[in-house]
Amino acid sequence: MIEVLGFIAGIFSSISFIPQVYKTWKTKSARDVSMQMFLVYELAVVLWIIYGIAKESAPIYITNGFVFFVSSIQITLKIIYDKKSAK
Amino acid sequence: MIEVLGFIAGIFSSISFIPQVYKTWKTKSARDVSMQMFLVYELAVVLWIIYGIAKESAPIYITNGFVFFVSSIQITLKIIYDKKSAK
Repeated sequence: MIEVLGFIAGIFSSISFIPQVYKTWKTKSARDVSMQMFLVYELAVVLWIIYGIAKESAPIYITNGFVFFVSSIQITLKIIYDKKSAK
Repeated sequence: MIEVLGFIAGIFSSISFIPQVYKTWKTKSARDVSMQMFLVYELAVVLWIIYGIAKESAPIYITNGFVFFVSSIQITLKIIYDKKSAK
């Protein structure tokens, strides 16, 4: 039962970055978005994945794996658009 | 031992939003930052706090409590600066 709550929490965590990725992709701008935020966050996510595996908590490692994926898209978009706007 | 890893992961999660808050505060602009991201994220964080308490995992509920606090500052700053730039 509590694992279900964990999965729901994880789903919201996972999808939380999607609006940011969508916004960045649509406006083609991520100047105000902090790169450091995403880099520190990705480091945290990797540690959570290890912690989740060790604690045998599937909601933690599965959802953090997805967050890592979405966050990586955001970082890639930011690099691309920051480079373009610097031209 | 594994709780220590959880705390380290939690510390990185917690501090990850600080660079964003700092950047927003310094540039006085958060146009490119998605409000939906922070709202969905706060909902997730609340669920994680409940999950952490139920699982008796201190790293989860303590760090998510802090994340909720930092995230709320970011939301407040975004509302203030978006309003100002709309003038």
